[in-house]
Amino acid sequence: MSGSPASFDAMWAELAPLGRSRRGGYDRFAWTRTDSDLREWFVAAAGSRGLDVDQDRAGNLWAWWGDPDAAVRTGDPGVVVGSHLDSVPSGGPFDGPLGVVSALAALDALRAAGVALTRPVGVLVSADEEGARFGVACAGTRLLTGALDPDRARALRDDEGTTLAEAYEAAGHDPGSLGADPRALSRVGAFVELHVEQGRGLVHHDRPVGVGASIWPHGRWRFDLPGRADHAGTTPLPDRDDAVLRLAHLVLTARAAAERHGALATVGRLDVTPNGTNAIASAARAWLDVRSEDAAAVEAVVADVTRAAGVEPEPESLTAATRFDPALTARAAALLGDAPVLGTGAGHDAGVLAAAGVPTTMLLVRNPTGVSHSPHEHAERDDCLAGVAALTAVLTDLVGAAPVAAEHR
Amino acid sequence: MSGSPASFDAMWAELAPLGRSRRGGYDRFAWTRTDSDLREWFVAAAGSRGLDVDQDRAGNLWAWWGDPDAAVRTGDPGVVVGSHLDSVPSGGPFDGPLGVVSALAALDALRAAGVALTRPVGVLVSADEEGARFGVACAGTRLLTGALDPDRARALRDDEGTTLAEAYEAAGHDPGSLGADPRALSRVGAFVELHVEQGRGLVHHDRPVGVGASIWPHGRWRFDLPGRADHAGTTPLPDRDDAVLRLAHLVLTARAAAERHGALATVGRLDVTPNGTNAIASAARAWLDVRSEDAAAVEAVVADVTRAAGVEPEPESLTAATRFDPALTARAAALLGDAPVLGTGAGHDAGVLAAAGVPTTMLLVRNPTGVSHSPHEHAERDDCLAGVAALTAVLTDLVGAAPVAAEHR
Repeated sequence: MSGSPASFDAMWAELAPLGRSRRGGYDRFAWTRTDSDLREWFVAAAGSRGLDVDQDRAGNLWAWWGDPDAAVRTGDPGVVVGSHLDSVPSGGPFDGPLGVVSALAALDALRAAGVALTRPVGVLVSADEEGARFGVACAGTRLLTGALDPDRARALRDDEGTTLAEAYEAAGHDPGSLGADPRALSRVGAFVELHVEQGRGLVHHDRPVGVGASIWPHGRWRFDLPGRADHAGTTPLPDRDDAVLRLAHLVLTARAAAERHGALATVGRLDVTPNGTNAIASAARAWLDVRSEDAAAVEAVVADVTRAAGVEPEPESLTAATRFDPALTARAAALLGDAPVLGTGAGHDAGVLAAAGVPTTMLLVRNPTGVSHSPHEHAERDDCLAGVAALTAVLTDLVGAAPVAAEHR
Repeated sequence: MSGSPASFDAMWAELAPLGRSRRGGYDRFAWTRTDSDLREWFVAAAGSRGLDVDQDRAGNLWAWWGDPDAAVRTGDPGVVVGSHLDSVPSGGPFDGPLGVVSALAALDALRAAGVALTRPVGVLVSADEEGARFGVACAGTRLLTGALDPDRARALRDDEGTTLAEAYEAAGHDPGSLGADPRALSRVGAFVELHVEQGRGLVHHDRPVGVGASIWPHGRWRFDLPGRADHAGTTPLPDRDDAVLRLAHLVLTARAAAERHGALATVGRLDVTPNGTNAIASAARAWLDVRSEDAAAVEAVVADVTRAAGVEPEPESLTAATRFDPALTARAAALLGDAPVLGTGAGHDAGVLAAAGVPTTMLLVRNPTGVSHSPHEHAERDDCLAGVAALTAVLTDLVGAAPVAAEHR
């Protein structure tokens, strides 16, 4: 079965210029002009394969090969592959787009091989997975499944003060219609998300492709730290209430708590007001990202930081531990020659859909440095093509007309 | 002699809407549209008083009453009053504009009183005093006096990557002509800058107006802290090189060093790359502001922070201790009924001109809270009018036709 290098390479080349950042890497944020370009690219790519694209009430895009509603009526809904196209600030090209491009390339491979479908196959492009602009990761799938309240979503603001509702409307959509979409969700009989690995597990296993087993519990909390604006040149040290000092203590407290409790804790995003060299900060915001295999460790880190900061944080997202469907995961791993089965601290739409009851698993593609969320994120082309081949094999197994024959191979 | 409350109030009302910020306070940054509005306001205000406004090679504006060049030829150059119109981010309305408005109001009072001039009087609006946009405080007067190299000035960049040269050109001026302007400087026989106090010294003295004695040595240093971009959810703590952790250590090191050495040290401005919640920072910038009565204490703080940070900072500005002209300062204090004579940790154009050899002093207007560089910066109207009256008295003493008569009062 072909890994479709030509179709993969062509799509990869089309995406390469979209949202390339001045600082290197990609700035592909939800409901921006760049995001529209990416979504239009997907509509065109699906269209060139004879597939229409529907947008659900949560802003996610779906391209179905076969009739998903007919499959729902027969009680055997389709299989969905795909991922997201948005990025973190100065993100890499693979986190997200690799899953979308591989999904379309796998469809091409299925068709090239003449595989007849027993179930429809859908390709999902989820909206606003990184949460880079409005602070809530997996906003599209959380809205879809009802995990994110649409009123809360509409009121989220970006750094410019624009609400998600305003941005959604500016992108040409009706923010009033945002919300859970049980009909779109009902079409998903299973979900397989291919993603670049965001660590070096596969390097250690010396394998190009692995299978995701679970997502660690993780969340984001925003701390709004107070201060009092004063002149840096005239205010005695004891008279100061400096929000940047609070910020510095929070950062170091979070690190120490993470070490103590066996978790990962990161402050990667800050905002200081007024952010002037000779102005003592009147306010500072710090976003705390905490993850661990152990949910109690996550809670303990947040509790320690909250106690030290003296302010209650605003929880922006919190995801419980998610175990992917054990049967689906084991079947994929076996099919792929006992591929390594790995847990991850990274959140994914696959986790949101799994939490909503969809049988889900992930395929992971080797990342030689483990670097992700960075312009230096990388995957070798051969490994990407191995990922397409693996996804094609898993899809063939799930929807192909002759699964029995496959077992006889 | 009239404090000209009507002319003061009218000018204050005209300035009030210009550059008002969304966050409260004022965003009045050099070579922006708002800055142009402020400069046009000054040209109109001077014009309505029959005064033309010239721009020097450093971008500063000068309105002369009387012929400054004739006075230079007779060896008795004029007296300049004024201040700046730009602000820090979310700054207050008084820091800068109070000196400009008071200068024009004092001119109005001199004229209303029919004072005949022995020397011309100039009103200065200095360019880019706060350095909020390009990082160098007192850029206009430093360029004027040759303390800031024009090539370095042209290459300064704001947060958007725009150079000062580009911004200056966009504002309608020729960046190629930027540089020292000995001819404009030669016209300044003395400089008296009125400014809102940025502390509570006058509150303690229970006086509305004081006289500035000196400016502490002070400076700004930019630290570019390295890091390595990585995913917050997948990178083990020991494998991280997190620029935000370095930043937090720098902030706390600076505070401890300031306490140890008897200085003021502030990190009020930060910049994190890429500044994403789930992205370990690949770089961070911190601007360190240090001041003390004692230059050795300033050096010691910077040395301690540099050693702890492990990177050499970029010095953005450094101002040695500045003592204002003792005779002029004493004369103003005596004239104002033994007004309190105060030193300050705040930098001012008066300090730059004094360092360039211009006989200089300052008048300070009471600040009830001491808060400055903040939307909450305040001065009572009565105290502002007392400031105008004091400036009028000092000007009358310096340029009025009958200084001998004044001694006989």
